[in-house]
Amino acid sequence: MITTDLLIIGAGPTGLFAVFEAGLLKLKCHIIDALPQPGGQLAELYPKKPIFDIPGYPSVNAGDLIDNLMEQIKQFQPGFTLAETAMTLEKIDDEWFEVVTNKGTVHRAKAVAIAGGLGTFEPRKPPIENIALYEEKGVEYFVKDPEVFRDKKIVIAGGGDSALDWSIFLSDVAKEVTLVHRRNEFRGALDSVEKVQVLKDQGKINLITPAEVTGIKGDGHVESLIITKEGEEVEITADYFIPLFGLTPKLGAIADWGLEIEKNAIKVDNSLDYQTNREGIYAIGDVNIYPGKLKLILCGFHEATLMCQSVYKRLNPGKNYVLKYTTVSGVDGFDGSRKEAEKAVVKKID
Amino acid sequence: MITTDLLIIGAGPTGLFAVFEAGLLKLKCHIIDALPQPGGQLAELYPKKPIFDIPGYPSVNAGDLIDNLMEQIKQFQPGFTLAETAMTLEKIDDEWFEVVTNKGTVHRAKAVAIAGGLGTFEPRKPPIENIALYEEKGVEYFVKDPEVFRDKKIVIAGGGDSALDWSIFLSDVAKEVTLVHRRNEFRGALDSVEKVQVLKDQGKINLITPAEVTGIKGDGHVESLIITKEGEEVEITADYFIPLFGLTPKLGAIADWGLEIEKNAIKVDNSLDYQTNREGIYAIGDVNIYPGKLKLILCGFHEATLMCQSVYKRLNPGKNYVLKYTTVSGVDGFDGSRKEAEKAVVKKID
Repeated sequence: MITTDLLIIGAGPTGLFAVFEAGLLKLKCHIIDALPQPGGQLAELYPKKPIFDIPGYPSVNAGDLIDNLMEQIKQFQPGFTLAETAMTLEKIDDEWFEVVTNKGTVHRAKAVAIAGGLGTFEPRKPPIENIALYEEKGVEYFVKDPEVFRDKKIVIAGGGDSALDWSIFLSDVAKEVTLVHRRNEFRGALDSVEKVQVLKDQGKINLITPAEVTGIKGDGHVESLIITKEGEEVEITADYFIPLFGLTPKLGAIADWGLEIEKNAIKVDNSLDYQTNREGIYAIGDVNIYPGKLKLILCGFHEATLMCQSVYKRLNPGKNYVLKYTTVSGVDGFDGSRKEAEKAVVKKID
Repeated sequence: MITTDLLIIGAGPTGLFAVFEAGLLKLKCHIIDALPQPGGQLAELYPKKPIFDIPGYPSVNAGDLIDNLMEQIKQFQPGFTLAETAMTLEKIDDEWFEVVTNKGTVHRAKAVAIAGGLGTFEPRKPPIENIALYEEKGVEYFVKDPEVFRDKKIVIAGGGDSALDWSIFLSDVAKEVTLVHRRNEFRGALDSVEKVQVLKDQGKINLITPAEVTGIKGDGHVESLIITKEGEEVEITADYFIPLFGLTPKLGAIADWGLEIEKNAIKVDNSLDYQTNREGIYAIGDVNIYPGKLKLILCGFHEATLMCQSVYKRLNPGKNYVLKYTTVSGVDGFDGSRKEAEKAVVKKID
């Protein structure tokens, strides 16, 4: 069982930054995310794309912003439960909330911040009758750990950036990479499309287009795939099938936690602390709604900050909080590290 | 007369970022600030100090943050009225507000955002009886343009970073630099104290300590100064006297604009758009107050953003606004420039 002060559901930029603000208040955090890595849609959907409206960054690539946030919060040693989806949220006594994931991992925390973005990113699945039987038994909708595919025969399906980029990356790892797409044209960064062309010409990627994976065979694990190309079926041996058809955000289990929902988002009290109708449960970032709400990363940062203040007051009743500026007071990490401005000296000039 | 859509009073980080958010909504901005350069206290008080709580920056020097914000808003060509203080704010008709500065510069705008921070930074003045007579006639509390001092005899008073840094900088510009401080010890960055020591040893800075400037003489302009050292008075010729004894923020004229004031700050409606009790006048950043208010830069960014949305609606009644993401739609500058993510290609792989 994992216990922490503040449990954050969602490892997008808002959830990550909350760790920093909580850390300044000496609150420990743990983050749950359905994706295999931190960063939410920034890391999963558009890591190489620039964002122009992060204050102080004329331009920053989404992936770099996440890297910077991870660096910023490192001092506060957040825990992570990744590639698991929070399924239930219950208040078990006066002090503790309990959140259990789809894999059964139990988390207890004194406050919960839902930073769930547009919801859990669920993969679009190909319409293959028996696909559910092979999920996590050779069918992978995400590449969690590329090493899993070392020296294996893999088939990737899809025609966008994810399919292109993972084909490129895994062509160096897997024994054999086959890329299947229902059109001849791919849609992605020019650079990626060109790299796949080169790797295909070198024989490092097998390309089958226009085609679709229409069947899966195997005894308890993927052993071969049926690929239909222009009406003709072929069967090829494969250890893994990785369909990369994009992700659809779904509010999912969050909708069943007794929170007021409006327009597929969680209603919060923005006039104070972004708390939901359930005391001690907050919603920050794109997942919340209030009058004038803008689904912008910079707004999530602000919401996370005010939320942490409220959590602090909740966990330290009666304690008087005085805002300290990081430039003046420095930042003390939970790992014993300290960041601080260079001190002024008082020195005589002779 | 300067006319604009949104007039921003205060060129600190919040005021600057407002230009960007306004620009995305095609609103032109003009900024007034009492200091001679943009950046507010970040540029004036601690440009070389690191800030650790700007989201996405594990550490950023205050001056660099301002430079980055200036770069980010450049596309939207904001106007600046610097080194002038906004004195009056009046609504002159249904459409226009008018703001006049202490120098008589008239600004008209359809909405006004007060991003005044802790107020106007007013210099602490030395208690010299006739000093007011010489203000801007040889007595300068800010170094607006170092070239003014080229080949002049100047006396700087003070014992902190400003006095040290300007003594160093101007020792290369002025004919003669005298630094007067009432103690022998200076308080500042080690590096600066050491540099002044070196320059003093080289004869490039005259140091008089422990001493104070106690008198000013001259016919319509500073001609000489009386310096009292350990009870003894000496008179030295000087073209300029630059007392750098720090700045005190004062809400100042803002307090007389009919806005609801609480704890030396302007009360705003945080549940919607950070508007004050006067419609069309907003207060953002450290200058405002609402329940749960935190005087943090990142909160100012959020407030600026929601404020701009409200201004947009006010100036475009009935027009339906659809939030666009900069990554998806790019950013079109008023100067014809365009920032955008690299476009995906649709391309066949043979």
